[in-house]
Amino acid sequence: MLKAEYQRRGPVPQDVIEAVDLTLPALQAGQVLIKVLAAPINPSDVLTLTGEYGMLPPLPAIGGNEGVGRVEELGEGVSKLKVGQNVLLPVGSGTWVTHLIADVDKLIPLPDADPQQLAMLTVNPPTASLLLSEFVDLKPGDWVIQNAANSGVGSYLIQLAKIRGFKTVNVVRRESAAEAVRAEGGDVVLVDGPDLHKRVREATGSAPILLAIDAVAGTGTEHLANCLSDGGVLVNYGRMSGQPCQITPSAFVFRDITMRGFWLAKWFRTASQADQFRVFGELIQLIAAGRLKARIGATYDITQIKEAVAAAASGERDGKIVLVP
Amino acid sequence: MLKAEYQRRGPVPQDVIEAVDLTLPALQAGQVLIKVLAAPINPSDVLTLTGEYGMLPPLPAIGGNEGVGRVEELGEGVSKLKVGQNVLLPVGSGTWVTHLIADVDKLIPLPDADPQQLAMLTVNPPTASLLLSEFVDLKPGDWVIQNAANSGVGSYLIQLAKIRGFKTVNVVRRESAAEAVRAEGGDVVLVDGPDLHKRVREATGSAPILLAIDAVAGTGTEHLANCLSDGGVLVNYGRMSGQPCQITPSAFVFRDITMRGFWLAKWFRTASQADQFRVFGELIQLIAAGRLKARIGATYDITQIKEAVAAAASGERDGKIVLVP
Repeated sequence: MLKAEYQRRGPVPQDVIEAVDLTLPALQAGQVLIKVLAAPINPSDVLTLTGEYGMLPPLPAIGGNEGVGRVEELGEGVSKLKVGQNVLLPVGSGTWVTHLIADVDKLIPLPDADPQQLAMLTVNPPTASLLLSEFVDLKPGDWVIQNAANSGVGSYLIQLAKIRGFKTVNVVRRESAAEAVRAEGGDVVLVDGPDLHKRVREATGSAPILLAIDAVAGTGTEHLANCLSDGGVLVNYGRMSGQPCQITPSAFVFRDITMRGFWLAKWFRTASQADQFRVFGELIQLIAAGRLKARIGATYDITQIKEAVAAAASGERDGKIVLVP
Repeated sequence: MLKAEYQRRGPVPQDVIEAVDLTLPALQAGQVLIKVLAAPINPSDVLTLTGEYGMLPPLPAIGGNEGVGRVEELGEGVSKLKVGQNVLLPVGSGTWVTHLIADVDKLIPLPDADPQQLAMLTVNPPTASLLLSEFVDLKPGDWVIQNAANSGVGSYLIQLAKIRGFKTVNVVRRESAAEAVRAEGGDVVLVDGPDLHKRVREATGSAPILLAIDAVAGTGTEHLANCLSDGGVLVNYGRMSGQPCQITPSAFVFRDITMRGFWLAKWFRTASQADQFRVFGELIQLIAAGRLKARIGATYDITQIKEAVAAAASGERDGKIVLVP
């Protein structure tokens, strides 16, 4: 049994994490032993290793926030789950491990579908879903623009927008990333640049755009703002450029743009249980049916954790990095 | 009779404007001839000369957007006003002139009070008033933070905040500007810098701050954002640094800051007449009573328009530049 653990945080995330032996305590009543089947490496996991995330666990810590496992052994009195059942791991539980013990009440049983796809359920798909629903009341036929369109969230956002009848303008930072985004169904795909707003107007026939989604920051924020209609909302949820958001005052003053941020962890703290069930119920169904999926760039086992984290932290990867312990 | 006119726009505002002879047509029925007593030079006037403002009049144009005059001659059928009555000039009418003709219906009679102070009624005081009322529902005792605190709007904002029972943190860009802001009643006055949030916390005893007002942009925006409590609102209405607003994504994502803009011209277009009367009614009373006033840096006549505009465009001035034709 292995775990991917870090004793300190530092600027090079693969330097601080390593695979070490895992010893689990004896199984207690009401608990189950789970063999982890798949756990992704998200941008927020990388920022947690570098210390740049908004919420940092005490050290030492095990990496990973989400994943899927299979029940291997039942503690005393457990009747709700059977051995062999696939379950969603508790969010934030340190999922980069080969095995873990969890209280049966914290586990959500999953339909019999691809565990690698279901392992990515709790972070990126609800982010994409809520970015499309929490800020602007979009109607079928409306346009939305996003950058980092080749990211995990970007890909889910394209797919969910299509399911809901919205059209997407998708911005990427390099031409080599554009083809995959087109293949995923992005209505318009463009490489970022100072003249983005002109090319967007041409491509959309100057359609109104009231929602822009920014995960790049830097001048990428300004380029999106220039594409928004007056009164539009610009939502940031990431900083792939490593730069502060840059945006001309006239966007706020003369064009009445509002800028907001989105953080899934805050939504988890404040949304009602009913809202959470509604959002996740829809997403589980869509993923299990194969209507919502992520490109997987590469899979690694826990012994390869440094290589896996380095791959996830690279801006050049194409698809999600998933640990398959 | 003279007017300050510009035939073109350009980066050096005093180069494009000049005083030239003014010839007025014959007075028509329903009109009055007005001698202008005072007209200020606002930052928005300077940006109109350089072409950077959100709304630009066709060329050639006369400078100036607000002012106070005295009725000198009545056209046929005018009974609502008497010769000698002071009036508010119609907003946006090109007020940098010695005389102008206006329809009597567009003139608001003013109480018998300092015309230079009343000449500054329509732009800066409502901006300050609405910045304090339109974005966050402040209660007596609440704190608000602003930069460019030594500007015209900044000064009115301090005075109006005091009248409404709010406390102000006032940020200036140079120590030499701080004393005047303290003298005006700013509760806390600090020079801007990367550690602003620490000094603000010390000075306020870590009081919550839910509204920040930015007229500087650049890193000034970020410094204000760092001083806001989670969930606070940052409102930009100017760009004295000439830089884009810069703000770290974590302010939006992890601390739920919302960024907006305020433009008085848009408020004039969208606010009901009742709201406009309510706002201006209060401000006229406060100014006429001497409870709300602006520091005047210097006065010039129309022949000195280039010198006056250069003084208004300088970041180093202390107090408003007012034309007294």
